[in-house]
Amino acid sequence: MLLGSGELGRELAFSFKRLGKTVIACDNYPQAPAMQVADQAQVLDLSDPQALKLCIEQTHPDLIISEVEKVAAPILVQIAASGLARVTPSAQAIATTFNRRSLRELASAHQIPTSDFRFAASAEELAAAAAEIGFPCFVKPTASSSGHGQSFLTSPQQVTEAWEKAISGARGESTEVIVEAKVDFDFEITLLTVNSLDPDGQVQLSFCQPIGHRQENGDYVESWQPQPLSESVLQQAQLTAKKIIEALAALDSTQPLLGLFGVELFIRDQEVIFSEIAPRPHDTGLVTLLSQQQSEFDLYARAVLGLPVNTALTTPGASAVIKASAKQSPPILGGLAHGLRHAEQIILFNKPAAYPGRRLGVTLASGPTVQTAREKAGRAAEEIKQVFPKT
Amino acid sequence: MLLGSGELGRELAFSFKRLGKTVIACDNYPQAPAMQVADQAQVLDLSDPQALKLCIEQTHPDLIISEVEKVAAPILVQIAASGLARVTPSAQAIATTFNRRSLRELASAHQIPTSDFRFAASAEELAAAAAEIGFPCFVKPTASSSGHGQSFLTSPQQVTEAWEKAISGARGESTEVIVEAKVDFDFEITLLTVNSLDPDGQVQLSFCQPIGHRQENGDYVESWQPQPLSESVLQQAQLTAKKIIEALAALDSTQPLLGLFGVELFIRDQEVIFSEIAPRPHDTGLVTLLSQQQSEFDLYARAVLGLPVNTALTTPGASAVIKASAKQSPPILGGLAHGLRHAEQIILFNKPAAYPGRRLGVTLASGPTVQTAREKAGRAAEEIKQVFPKT
Repeated sequence: MLLGSGELGRELAFSFKRLGKTVIACDNYPQAPAMQVADQAQVLDLSDPQALKLCIEQTHPDLIISEVEKVAAPILVQIAASGLARVTPSAQAIATTFNRRSLRELASAHQIPTSDFRFAASAEELAAAAAEIGFPCFVKPTASSSGHGQSFLTSPQQVTEAWEKAISGARGESTEVIVEAKVDFDFEITLLTVNSLDPDGQVQLSFCQPIGHRQENGDYVESWQPQPLSESVLQQAQLTAKKIIEALAALDSTQPLLGLFGVELFIRDQEVIFSEIAPRPHDTGLVTLLSQQQSEFDLYARAVLGLPVNTALTTPGASAVIKASAKQSPPILGGLAHGLRHAEQIILFNKPAAYPGRRLGVTLASGPTVQTAREKAGRAAEEIKQVFPKT
Repeated sequence: MLLGSGELGRELAFSFKRLGKTVIACDNYPQAPAMQVADQAQVLDLSDPQALKLCIEQTHPDLIISEVEKVAAPILVQIAASGLARVTPSAQAIATTFNRRSLRELASAHQIPTSDFRFAASAEELAAAAAEIGFPCFVKPTASSSGHGQSFLTSPQQVTEAWEKAISGARGESTEVIVEAKVDFDFEITLLTVNSLDPDGQVQLSFCQPIGHRQENGDYVESWQPQPLSESVLQQAQLTAKKIIEALAALDSTQPLLGLFGVELFIRDQEVIFSEIAPRPHDTGLVTLLSQQQSEFDLYARAVLGLPVNTALTTPGASAVIKASAKQSPPILGGLAHGLRHAEQIILFNKPAAYPGRRLGVTLASGPTVQTAREKAGRAAEEIKQVFPKT
């Protein structure tokens, strides 16, 4: 059962179907990308604990996978404890990583370096916290999906607006925000890390080659693999991923923490600073559909099914995001033929509606170097645009 | 609309979904592999012209793709002519290639070398035809899917049995067989050939690297890419593919013949002998899911949608077939963890029922050489077996 049926869920569905599984796709709107390719679809408010519980009781999945942050995580803890279904990687890991407060507290408890941060529960507390952290800084709801309700503040005058944006962009009834110091990083990476069983049933941690990526307004616009790192930075990055995954594993001693994790790290000079962790495939990892024999979706499926994984890179690759420019239902995209001149793969998500900035697809390209691959993927993405037929 | 919803149809569905299309999967049994991942499923007898016509009229597809031989091809010619739907690559190409008589006649008319052959419409005619061709020889219904109703004859005593097997294994009411001389080939290849539009709208013929394969009882058990060929043999192979595709294109002058074709060729010393052509992805081409950036399914989807293609090989690769050993509904397969030690990909087709010899999955492996890849894929396939839980 997929909680969340977007583009990542759709690729997960493909990977599970190729391993012979039955897929139930859930989301809060009909015709979501993964629903179109699943054996069964369920439309419900995933953040409503009662609705979620009822749906799980009615469909009896063996395995529950959360593809999005906007789920009623505490009810998953109950469901896993009751033995009704297995939640992967674990209900506790989902509940902890989906809240910025609990994740920071976990990182702090395990001496994992992060940016400076403070929490605030009112506009007044936020003003004080931001003054302590200093400007520029970020304000984010402690409970929200990537990008939602986030502000970048350069002066105290922006505090009130940031507070209001955070509260309206938060999940559920959360009224807490986090203030984070801006890290002047050289670049940021996603280290896809897999905790799986080897063929002898032993737990094994494996790393994919680091993925470099570029964000605009908290949302990824391009990624590439491998991102070259010095040996020392690579080791620190892997150690950071290992520590945070071990900390998450310790939250539930009843089962090994099997899955794939998108570990987000800032690199500044020779220093590695922890940013976030997704207990599931990561959007920047779409590039692995082309750059690895086993994509992050294949790796996730194998890991949670107790199967061995192979994280080898096969070619330098890059992805570039295709975004909507305007509202349109359904969106119609043109320029594919010209895009395919440059990129080997163009993946359209087939979302039922577009709004400005919504991710509608991704281009994937390979090359002898990541630079070549980035140029190819970027050029392809530029070719693909919404078209508005005259009716 | 996919006519036929087996493992090839399922991969086609994935490729079309990634290009943002809506897929209707049809076959003569429920829960067929492609139905499980399609937007809509239709269960009907595809060889029944009236049922097929009704289904097309009711669902109004833009594009009809035949994944199997057992379709009522003549009704597709009518439907395409009436403008109700586009049939790819063309209804005429499907009708011609799905019948061994019309395909041989087309090859003969274009001076394309094949094995010696005769047709026979009774056991007596078959005895005479086999005597003319000589033993050993093959007997096949002129209308049947790969393997169905085929016999390998080493002596005249086997003629009666071969006749009865051919007639019972034929599609529809066909009572004609073909006798083919056995070609003492060194090896056989599939040359995947794509007829597509380039970004400027010009028709372009492209070739994938040759795929070598090994058959047992007319059914493929392993394939690999690239199969090395001498420059002269490669040129003859490409010329043969070009001639037969041009001949098929000439059957319908109203549209370019867009699609991917699996051209089956025997290689004997420096000689290339035409065997068959599938106007669609070929089972031996499953290896391209791993060995090319654009698999044969991606290539087919791009070609029929008028998009440009890239047939480049990315790595030597091999596939090995996982077959059922016994009846079981649904089949349960064990040994995946051990199989994944050797092969990067294991693809299970999730068919609702198994019977001895039915194809249930395929392993895919890469390697520095095809020999390494074949060993890996073969070892992985050996690990995966049906299991029969005690209930």
